[in-house]
Amino acid sequence: MSHSLKSFASDNNAPVHDAVFQAMLESNRGDAIGYGDDIHTMAAEKHFKEIFGKDARVFFMLTGTGANAAGLSHITRPYHAIVCSDKAHMENDECGAPEKITGCKLIRLPSEDGKIKPSQILPHLDSIGFQHHSQPKVVSVTQATELGTVYRPEEISEIAHFTREHDLYLHMDGARLANAAASLDLSLSEISGKAGVDLLSFGGTKNGAMAAEALIFFNQDLADGFEYTRKQSMQLMSKMRYISAQFNALFSGGLWLENARKANRMAKMLAERIEDIPSITITQQVETNGVFAMMPRAAIEKLRRRYFFYTWDARKNEVRLMTSYNTTEHDIDGFVEAIRESLRK
Amino acid sequence: MSHSLKSFASDNNAPVHDAVFQAMLESNRGDAIGYGDDIHTMAAEKHFKEIFGKDARVFFMLTGTGANAAGLSHITRPYHAIVCSDKAHMENDECGAPEKITGCKLIRLPSEDGKIKPSQILPHLDSIGFQHHSQPKVVSVTQATELGTVYRPEEISEIAHFTREHDLYLHMDGARLANAAASLDLSLSEISGKAGVDLLSFGGTKNGAMAAEALIFFNQDLADGFEYTRKQSMQLMSKMRYISAQFNALFSGGLWLENARKANRMAKMLAERIEDIPSITITQQVETNGVFAMMPRAAIEKLRRRYFFYTWDARKNEVRLMTSYNTTEHDIDGFVEAIRESLRK
Amino acid sequence: MSHSLKSFASDNNAPVHDAVFQAMLESNRGDAIGYGDDIHTMAAEKHFKEIFGKDARVFFMLTGTGANAAGLSHITRPYHAIVCSDKAHMENDECGAPEKITGCKLIRLPSEDGKIKPSQILPHLDSIGFQHHSQPKVVSVTQATELGTVYRPEEISEIAHFTREHDLYLHMDGARLANAAASLDLSLSEISGKAGVDLLSFGGTKNGAMAAEALIFFNQDLADGFEYTRKQSMQLMSKMRYISAQFNALFSGGLWLENARKANRMAKMLAERIEDIPSITITQQVETNGVFAMMPRAAIEKLRRRYFFYTWDARKNEVRLMTSYNTTEHDIDGFVEAIRESLRK
Amino acid sequence: MSHSLKSFASDNNAPVHDAVFQAMLESNRGDAIGYGDDIHTMAAEKHFKEIFGKDARVFFMLTGTGANAAGLSHITRPYHAIVCSDKAHMENDECGAPEKITGCKLIRLPSEDGKIKPSQILPHLDSIGFQHHSQPKVVSVTQATELGTVYRPEEISEIAHFTREHDLYLHMDGARLANAAASLDLSLSEISGKAGVDLLSFGGTKNGAMAAEALIFFNQDLADGFEYTRKQSMQLMSKMRYISAQFNALFSGGLWLENARKANRMAKMLAERIEDIPSITITQQVETNGVFAMMPRAAIEKLRRRYFFYTWDARKNEVRLMTSYNTTEHDIDGFVEAIRESLRK
Repeated sequence: MSHSLKSFASDNNAPVHDAVFQAMLESNRGDAIGYGDDIHTMAAEKHFKEIFGKDARVFFMLTGTGANAAGLSHITRPYHAIVCSDKAHMENDECGAPEKITGCKLIRLPSEDGKIKPSQILPHLDSIGFQHHSQPKVVSVTQATELGTVYRPEEISEIAHFTREHDLYLHMDGARLANAAASLDLSLSEISGKAGVDLLSFGGTKNGAMAAEALIFFNQDLADGFEYTRKQSMQLMSKMRYISAQFNALFSGGLWLENARKANRMAKMLAERIEDIPSITITQQVETNGVFAMMPRAAIEKLRRRYFFYTWDARKNEVRLMTSYNTTEHDIDGFVEAIRESLRK
Repeated sequence: MSHSLKSFASDNNAPVHDAVFQAMLESNRGDAIGYGDDIHTMAAEKHFKEIFGKDARVFFMLTGTGANAAGLSHITRPYHAIVCSDKAHMENDECGAPEKITGCKLIRLPSEDGKIKPSQILPHLDSIGFQHHSQPKVVSVTQATELGTVYRPEEISEIAHFTREHDLYLHMDGARLANAAASLDLSLSEISGKAGVDLLSFGGTKNGAMAAEALIFFNQDLADGFEYTRKQSMQLMSKMRYISAQFNALFSGGLWLENARKANRMAKMLAERIEDIPSITITQQVETNGVFAMMPRAAIEKLRRRYFFYTWDARKNEVRLMTSYNTTEHDIDGFVEAIRESLRK
Repeated sequence: MSHSLKSFASDNNAPVHDAVFQAMLESNRGDAIGYGDDIHTMAAEKHFKEIFGKDARVFFMLTGTGANAAGLSHITRPYHAIVCSDKAHMENDECGAPEKITGCKLIRLPSEDGKIKPSQILPHLDSIGFQHHSQPKVVSVTQATELGTVYRPEEISEIAHFTREHDLYLHMDGARLANAAASLDLSLSEISGKAGVDLLSFGGTKNGAMAAEALIFFNQDLADGFEYTRKQSMQLMSKMRYISAQFNALFSGGLWLENARKANRMAKMLAERIEDIPSITITQQVETNGVFAMMPRAAIEKLRRRYFFYTWDARKNEVRLMTSYNTTEHDIDGFVEAIRESLRK
Repeated sequence: MSHSLKSFASDNNAPVHDAVFQAMLESNRGDAIGYGDDIHTMAAEKHFKEIFGKDARVFFMLTGTGANAAGLSHITRPYHAIVCSDKAHMENDECGAPEKITGCKLIRLPSEDGKIKPSQILPHLDSIGFQHHSQPKVVSVTQATELGTVYRPEEISEIAHFTREHDLYLHMDGARLANAAASLDLSLSEISGKAGVDLLSFGGTKNGAMAAEALIFFNQDLADGFEYTRKQSMQLMSKMRYISAQFNALFSGGLWLENARKANRMAKMLAERIEDIPSITITQQVETNGVFAMMPRAAIEKLRRRYFFYTWDARKNEVRLMTSYNTTEHDIDGFVEAIRESLRK
């Protein structure tokens, strides 16, 4: 394929932010003990405790799928069920890693905007105590969702209240937690741990890092022994300092927030520039860094010759257009122009 | 712990080689499609085909444990058994990842030097066809071994001949394949694929990379569908170009060989400088970049206050001293001096 | 609970048929080699080949869940997906055994009557070739369904044509295959192997046996090595002759058919006797041995004091009333009388 | 193969004891609620509580492999290791079910007589706390062992003391616990729960039942949720009354003890009758119902034409000769005569 250099396919198509790279380079001096017993990792853990609270226990991971699947396996038994949205990454885009690694059943709740509600979960709790049924034990929400929407803190709290009442755990897939925080103008903690989340997969990769994911247990007891689960899940980086350095860069001087705001702003700009085009329908609230839109199939095909992006739902001619910290106004200009051209006869 | 900056604990305590870092930096320009559909990955795959043959199929992985466990799971069924040395990394240092991910039994063969022989494997084939027994299907060898020793190509070939004759696969854990090739003055292929290996875990991390592992199938049919196993095994890097760039650096201008030779040479030098000390006994042939030695317990404790290294066998007062591409003659001087001091009353 | 002796809860509440018990008793003479190398098992295998064709390979199993999960694990890799109805036993009533044992994702298709159609499966094949998605590999149908309905042979053939065209396997959960065959007045083979099924879980337990399940591979290659999967799946009976004797009894003189017809006839009779009651709505076609009906909640509660049966959907006040080979007209009389009484103010 | 009717291959080659069959037949009256909510199961549970203590929680299972693997999976996490003898059934004869179902590593301790000692376990606890190593969590002993030997209660207690001290669990594979109890003239409890065992796989099948296994948790907390593990492990019998009836028969009037004594006595008799034959060497203490002996290869081959038995170690010409409750003095006479004949030139 010959594409222009700029991709709207995913925020993971962006390069590593210069400041992140610089921090990695600075950590590249002399020997360092492996597996996390180094000063960069200590510094990064300190950042996490400042952000998520001193009782948070953090483990660095290599992939978002790894954080989700290994984390969930640690807080479940194989006869449990994990309840999530039918739009969740773990349900759709992890090639069955959650099932393979946890042994659990995933219960998918229908959702138009990627968000789920306690009233949808409740009927599935009828299974509890019946030996023939997988036992619901975890509710997993995605913040921001795959569809770019965000949960308000009170929505998270409502689910957390529900999960505690029913002796369930609340997991949050925060691959784009930074974008959600930026969107809501709230701290990372206010929309996760403080709102009642027990276990958080926190992603740095889509926020300007190279490969930096973390798993945060807000309930310390739940974390016991997770170092073994991480290793057995093939997620333990030997030269840990290079993950830690990435987080240190993102958390220094608020780079994470700057990156997230930039990505969100570019999506908003893109949406505003195309929403008035009659043959285009924007299908989701643009709350973070993705724009979902229906447009004529012929136009999609023309546009794809110049830009890389994903068709989200081929049956509806719906595309997903993602921006990143690295997207510029100039990129938006070029892309909008290309969209308009693709729509011409 | 307060250690000197120089570690003899592991070759993964070394920093990333400057040329590798430089290549990563150079790949950090603009957007790139994720998951391997980028020019850096294409270039890296070309390197691998040049080295391992045009029929080799390569998949980049995040950790050595991931390469071993995911690779083995792909070529086995859970009722199979995997035969390896009792010194193998997969048996001792992967926290049970092979068992968890493959479901297979590991059969460990006793070995003084980390190497195994067909005559040790043969008795375990009595199980074949008996429904109550795990069915041996893979033999796994480590090159170089955990003990720093190397298999000669004819030793590999002999095992490969045996495995083919008995309808088994031959896997090689090549986390330190570069060191073995440098030691034998042979190509990477001559001591793996050309010698009859079916599946190779190839490590770049201990050879000067940051985190760059690869799984190479010499039998193309075996590779079918491995992209799914990789993803489900949580080993698929989204920003793949940064793994690929590391391999590109290692394979440009023979950096991999230079690094391996340097590490090996430093181990040899260290061994030569301490082998005449009466209270020290070197316990393994120094063929690659590790020196195994017994020394008085009090000396071990003293030395540990200044340098980081592992006790290999506490019951025998045996230590493992690892060198890397980054170890210098000056480091050896300092370390040997510290060893001598630690031996003084 | 104090219930009358007669249960409408499940066909597995029935006792073992006398002729089945007698056959077990007759096999109980002297020693017999374990694990299937005995004359009773040879005879039973012969029966299965006569019924399902000489190329069929049969393995005896201990539970229906075991037949489903172990069989599916043998024909899949963990990155595969298994497509079934949202009413399927494997989706709802096996406590996650399929996920745990296969590692696969289950894709549930909505179904009012427990049956699924190729047009529902097709959209899920979009995932094929995309490394982030579980790869559909098996379609599983239930015959008769959990809702007592049956697939016509042409419906099975249509699905089989579809699965072959798309390189998928067709599995049939035939826990009540006998009831389906009796209902359609067709042979067991005509509605399974001959219609294109690759793998059949065949149940004897609900048809008058004690615990007799079988897994039948119509594709011989698929069966290779299943003896190991069975053992590892904890489904290998040591004193195999006692399972075999049960099948020998069911397949001698057409007892299986007689039992199935009787059970079906009793359900039909029950339905006819209650369908005119104004406050009762029968919700599914009564094609085999289950009657699904909505009735007032108060009546359900009253009735439950005297008879054991399951509430199928509490939100709809829908109950499931199962008959078996052991249900008599007199039982129906009594039950209908109790239903009528429960409806009185 | 044409064998005489009498087998010395395994105690599971024996038929079902008449009294057991009679009890099953008596339970075969009318309908009974499935999955254990019936009077026969209540009675059987009462028997178990009388024998093993009122705090014991018992679950009925279908196979010994199922009891071992499902039980162990319930008290471990996949990163744990299970320590057992290299002669253990779970290590050798369960086709890898423990690894597949638990995900754990098995650590096998060398043993001449099938028994293990705390001093052998201790070195493996060095792994505890090191994230790269599987974490030992369970010690499993077999009573009686695969070699027919028995642990004295003080030997069990010593191991139990050790496991508690080190925060490990003690599992006992009691497939032949009855034989051990008979041999020691102690109660079933004195050599299991009272001696400190946490989890017991108790076998009825080799003691005259058809298929009756149980898992007993002496630590009630450990049992929480096991009903789900049992179902997911495909070990839940729907028509449970027929397992329960078997246990009721074995535990009524001391039939279990009578059967075990008989089997043991026959082995003792066999051993006494052959131990003086010069070309035969009995290799293990005959403490229960197995005789292990070395004899000339030619004689083994001749004998096998008339009787079924297993070669235990082909390299040593060692055979295993098992007796059962159903072996008679007359059988021993005939077998000894055949052995003597097979030794003649």
